[in-house]
Amino acid sequence: MVRLASRLLMFAVACLVAGHVYAEDGYDLWLRYRAPVGATATHRAVPRIDARSRSPSIIAAADELRRGVAGLSAAQQAALGTIVVATAGDPRVRALDLRVAPLGDEGYLVRTVTLGGARVTLVTANSDQGALYGSFALLRHAYAGGDLRAVSLSSAPHVRLRILDHWDNLDGSVERGYAGQSLWEWWTLPDYRDPRYTDYARANASIGINGVVLNNVNSSADSLTARYITKAAALADVFRPYGIRVYLSARFSAPIELGGLASADPLDPRVAAWWRAKTDEIYRAIPDFGGFLVKANSEGQPGPRDYHRTHAEGANMLAAAVRPHGGVVMWRAFVYADTDPDDRAKQAYTEFKPLDGRFADNVIVQVKNGAIDFQPREPFHPLFGAMPRTALMPEFQITKEYLGQATHLAYLGPLFAETLGADTMAQGPGSTVARIIDGSLYPHGLTGIAGVANVGRDRDWSGSTFNQANWYAFGRLAWDPTLDPRAIAREWAAMTFAPAVADRIAAMMMPSREAVVDYMTPLGLAHLMATGHHYGPGPWVSDLKRPEWNPVYYHRADRNGIGFDRTASGSNAVAQYAAPLARRLSDPATTPTDELLWFQHLRWDHAMPSGRTLWAELVHHYDAGVAQVDVMRQQWNALRSQIDAERWAKTATFLDIQAREAAWWRDASIAYWSSINRMPLPAGTRPPAHDLRWYEAQRFPHAPGNPQ
Amino acid sequence: MVRLASRLLMFAVACLVAGHVYAEDGYDLWLRYRAPVGATATHRAVPRIDARSRSPSIIAAADELRRGVAGLSAAQQAALGTIVVATAGDPRVRALDLRVAPLGDEGYLVRTVTLGGARVTLVTANSDQGALYGSFALLRHAYAGGDLRAVSLSSAPHVRLRILDHWDNLDGSVERGYAGQSLWEWWTLPDYRDPRYTDYARANASIGINGVVLNNVNSSADSLTARYITKAAALADVFRPYGIRVYLSARFSAPIELGGLASADPLDPRVAAWWRAKTDEIYRAIPDFGGFLVKANSEGQPGPRDYHRTHAEGANMLAAAVRPHGGVVMWRAFVYADTDPDDRAKQAYTEFKPLDGRFADNVIVQVKNGAIDFQPREPFHPLFGAMPRTALMPEFQITKEYLGQATHLAYLGPLFAETLGADTMAQGPGSTVARIIDGSLYPHGLTGIAGVANVGRDRDWSGSTFNQANWYAFGRLAWDPTLDPRAIAREWAAMTFAPAVADRIAAMMMPSREAVVDYMTPLGLAHLMATGHHYGPGPWVSDLKRPEWNPVYYHRADRNGIGFDRTASGSNAVAQYAAPLARRLSDPATTPTDELLWFQHLRWDHAMPSGRTLWAELVHHYDAGVAQVDVMRQQWNALRSQIDAERWAKTATFLDIQAREAAWWRDASIAYWSSINRMPLPAGTRPPAHDLRWYEAQRFPHAPGNPQ
Repeated sequence: MVRLASRLLMFAVACLVAGHVYAEDGYDLWLRYRAPVGATATHRAVPRIDARSRSPSIIAAADELRRGVAGLSAAQQAALGTIVVATAGDPRVRALDLRVAPLGDEGYLVRTVTLGGARVTLVTANSDQGALYGSFALLRHAYAGGDLRAVSLSSAPHVRLRILDHWDNLDGSVERGYAGQSLWEWWTLPDYRDPRYTDYARANASIGINGVVLNNVNSSADSLTARYITKAAALADVFRPYGIRVYLSARFSAPIELGGLASADPLDPRVAAWWRAKTDEIYRAIPDFGGFLVKANSEGQPGPRDYHRTHAEGANMLAAAVRPHGGVVMWRAFVYADTDPDDRAKQAYTEFKPLDGRFADNVIVQVKNGAIDFQPREPFHPLFGAMPRTALMPEFQITKEYLGQATHLAYLGPLFAETLGADTMAQGPGSTVARIIDGSLYPHGLTGIAGVANVGRDRDWSGSTFNQANWYAFGRLAWDPTLDPRAIAREWAAMTFAPAVADRIAAMMMPSREAVVDYMTPLGLAHLMATGHHYGPGPWVSDLKRPEWNPVYYHRADRNGIGFDRTASGSNAVAQYAAPLARRLSDPATTPTDELLWFQHLRWDHAMPSGRTLWAELVHHYDAGVAQVDVMRQQWNALRSQIDAERWAKTATFLDIQAREAAWWRDASIAYWSSINRMPLPAGTRPPAHDLRWYEAQRFPHAPGNPQ
Repeated sequence: MVRLASRLLMFAVACLVAGHVYAEDGYDLWLRYRAPVGATATHRAVPRIDARSRSPSIIAAADELRRGVAGLSAAQQAALGTIVVATAGDPRVRALDLRVAPLGDEGYLVRTVTLGGARVTLVTANSDQGALYGSFALLRHAYAGGDLRAVSLSSAPHVRLRILDHWDNLDGSVERGYAGQSLWEWWTLPDYRDPRYTDYARANASIGINGVVLNNVNSSADSLTARYITKAAALADVFRPYGIRVYLSARFSAPIELGGLASADPLDPRVAAWWRAKTDEIYRAIPDFGGFLVKANSEGQPGPRDYHRTHAEGANMLAAAVRPHGGVVMWRAFVYADTDPDDRAKQAYTEFKPLDGRFADNVIVQVKNGAIDFQPREPFHPLFGAMPRTALMPEFQITKEYLGQATHLAYLGPLFAETLGADTMAQGPGSTVARIIDGSLYPHGLTGIAGVANVGRDRDWSGSTFNQANWYAFGRLAWDPTLDPRAIAREWAAMTFAPAVADRIAAMMMPSREAVVDYMTPLGLAHLMATGHHYGPGPWVSDLKRPEWNPVYYHRADRNGIGFDRTASGSNAVAQYAAPLARRLSDPATTPTDELLWFQHLRWDHAMPSGRTLWAELVHHYDAGVAQVDVMRQQWNALRSQIDAERWAKTATFLDIQAREAAWWRDASIAYWSSINRMPLPAGTRPPAHDLRWYEAQRFPHAPGNPQ
């Protein structure tokens, strides 16, 4: 025993000494699997994992359970007993006569049962992939502090395609990526398969993500060459056991660039034949290839409109190519024409609404959550509810292009939930976006949800610990759009830090996105970011080529008032919403305050429900946003003793940066509005630290994450 | 005891379980500090570190010793006893009457001594920094398996400036970097100080590096703005305890770009005043700022020649600005003019030789190891030995721009040592490059050596485990240019893997660079790389704008022969060497075979010492290079059971890539030469796998590491 103890001590010392053994550098994400500090108790043997299938997904599930259960306390381990992982076809499971039909292809059931006379924890499902999801659900339950003596968990995903869109370029850069280079080391693929690819797949599977678009929607045709297909196939091989399919962004003009054709006209049989052959080639390398994502005729990308064809004609041509293989086409509705002087917020609807019912049934139209572009807050996109005969999937941005990038703490769970819970009124009250995209309002076989990934090669994947929560929350809401973002935050915090701090961390996270809205673009303002990067304010910018690229296009501030009139007296964008909603949004009195200036142009002295003038209300919101960041700093400071030093310090530093930049946003914005309305600052307002000229002169030529 | 054992077991299990506790991902470099597998023995308390000084460097030394000693076996720990870290001024050390004068400012002495009646291991030096170097030397000695009962180590560096040049851009890209983005996260500096910066400093200090140029020689003037000076100062703060000074590459035209001046003429008093003010500003932020590195009038960079001033006039103007602060200017001699039709290999000498004696004494001219550009093999640069009145520092490339980038295994110790040991004959036999640059042949107060860094944000720092050895070897040879590269390889392998495999790994490394020479550019050939990247062969390339950018410029192959005639009948570059050497290099019979075609144009049927024709000899070398890669694969396969799985697999995969690419180089080259000489392949030669057209058609548009 002494010798054993001595050896263990040696090992323990070696563990502690070896540089980053306990380096909490964030790499482990929410799969940390560490017992809370102080949770020792008497040790017992790690519970047995009984997983007899040799399917790769079941092996992955058993590996994960071994890894995860070993980090639980002895009491937790005892409560679990043996963990049996078996699909519903297993005779032992069949004998239990469980209700597995509602689980569908991907759902799971985890339950404490008696099997062969012993009390065990059973993880079951109709598929291996479901069993993998169930294993992660059990670990989530355990690490969030759930009771393990009588487990009863069951869930099935509400939507079929739960996708991460990577805006990763072949040169390793990531458009709007703030966490380092692309995870994909294209140069050493397919030979070298970085163990990190597997950890990426584990993280995704743990939250139910089942598809990954590898390359940027602003895509290079090279992604479709034989050389890159082989590389993509290697990633698909790594991801397959985790139930993750690979998709590719397709450049619509590839038949010209790669095929030497004179045209990419979707109705040209040679073009269709080229895509069929290319698709067949991809499926030979990747038999479970998911399909294509296409950004067409948008921001300079080629598309069917170049040949006077509709988006539907373009999408359907590609859909025909992938159909024999069971693939899908995700076609983006993010379009605005450089020739159309109409309100940019209206253009996607104008172009796509007439195409309702014209898309093949393996096409799903991917619609951004709002009608502009991933702003801190946007009203839900009017296409939701407006295309009953078309499968629609929302596209969220997990990467915080407009919400403070890597450094600002902004938990996006409330943003995602706000859109998903928005009532389109399309079929009367209760016609939420969630019910449209899960196929329950208008039945569609194809359902989906996409998020622009926020992961890169930074050690902590997402550039900051709290950005990991946005990846997590996206996955959880993609699985079940009705989940409560606060519960998700608690769950994430418990796994990422410890159950003891979960409530306090969730409390810190919940108001964080609203704080960003407040100090950047309060009261429905939008798109006021600087030129060339989105790190700071640029409400004064008016010199960009296209009108709708300029912040002044969006805020329309002048001596008398501010806001974009989208009522009947203005662009009448409100008419794109269901009639009762359109009516509500036409009247300042019934428009939600937080969307007010999105829909109305109002006088600076407009009386707000608070009793303040609009001008005073604006300033009040800026101040509230800045103040909330200070609250977060205090909350984080109070957590210092309960968080490991490395992650605590990084977040503390980032909160300092956020406080400085929040003040920058507030001060620059107030300085600018003052110069426009020439009104005195509301009484008691702290004047901006610098004059407007100073803010206008700020330049950041090497800001990360911008397109090359 | 049972409870203790149980707790330790819990901890040990947690260690093993926690994902990457024992993940051998290469992050630890040669500072792994792990006991060889199986080395347990009875445990005893970790030796006491007695370091009373509170100087940051001594604290760093003590921390490192604690970290390192804990990983040693119990027997080793017992042999060491207490480790006393104290400078020579400490009364206890003074009482020992050791010979510390020869240690100078940075040297160290580590010795087993009796202090206060107890046998201890003493680490001493004349400075805190020396004591830090001594601590690393002790750990190196221990982990290379050295005897710890009677330690006696002493060394002082041969050169003063031991510098890493980072070719890192402000946008995070690294020119010719093959290990991911820049380590420096400029955006979050100065606020966030990634713990990795400290680990970088530790690694450098462990091998004696004492200076770091943060930014690319193709530099942006933005690096000199107040904003970036603050960021550089934050890095300097992190590096300072490790004895590392920060330097900046200076863009010569910065007075125009930042200062709004009309000119950057070094003799214009306004220009000199601008640089003085800028330099003062830098020193206010970084009191121990090292100075400037300048690439002027080279490959499009601005410089004094734009104003008809000499390089000396340009350098001296900057030198005057840094002189009051004790700074230096490192001025690169890498110049070749787009207007000069003369042999590119001659141009730096032609331009700089007349300036000998004209440089201020705080200027050091930085000369690439060879006259062209970091080729797999080049004869030493003729400027070495030709500028007795000028301080010269060699510039090596650690990053393998021309030697297989991240994936090929090529240990550069022999390359560095080959240049350092080359005999210039400048003052008769024995006038080695090492003796020129260490100031012993021509006395100079300022001595130095620079290497273009191969580190980036990849987890393993250098893109591959074996590339770490090049960083290590550079540092060791910069400290002492007379070290044996095989001994360095053994030392590195013992620390990086284990002493038991050190000899076998060193045996694998030693011929690796020659293998690259053989399969890429044998017999003195050079600069035959493809266009736009240097991953593959392009001997046929002849369409680039400037003649000396084209491979055909360098090999001069035609129907009759191959090679660049640099004798009197050709460019007469040989005349730039000392007369006895020039004579030797003028005659094929006395020119070293491995430099033959660098100096001579010879007939394809020229009879080689081996008895083969030149053509057969060429093919023989290509085959030898390819065969050596196969030998390395076999050697690595045989080591499988003794290397951790993760690092073994990565290197094995990279060796597979290298084998494939070595064959590509060989086959493409042979196909091309055959097309030129129209000779049959030498008997028994395996024909190329494809025809020449196939090789010419290869395109790699997204190859990493290229300038943006």
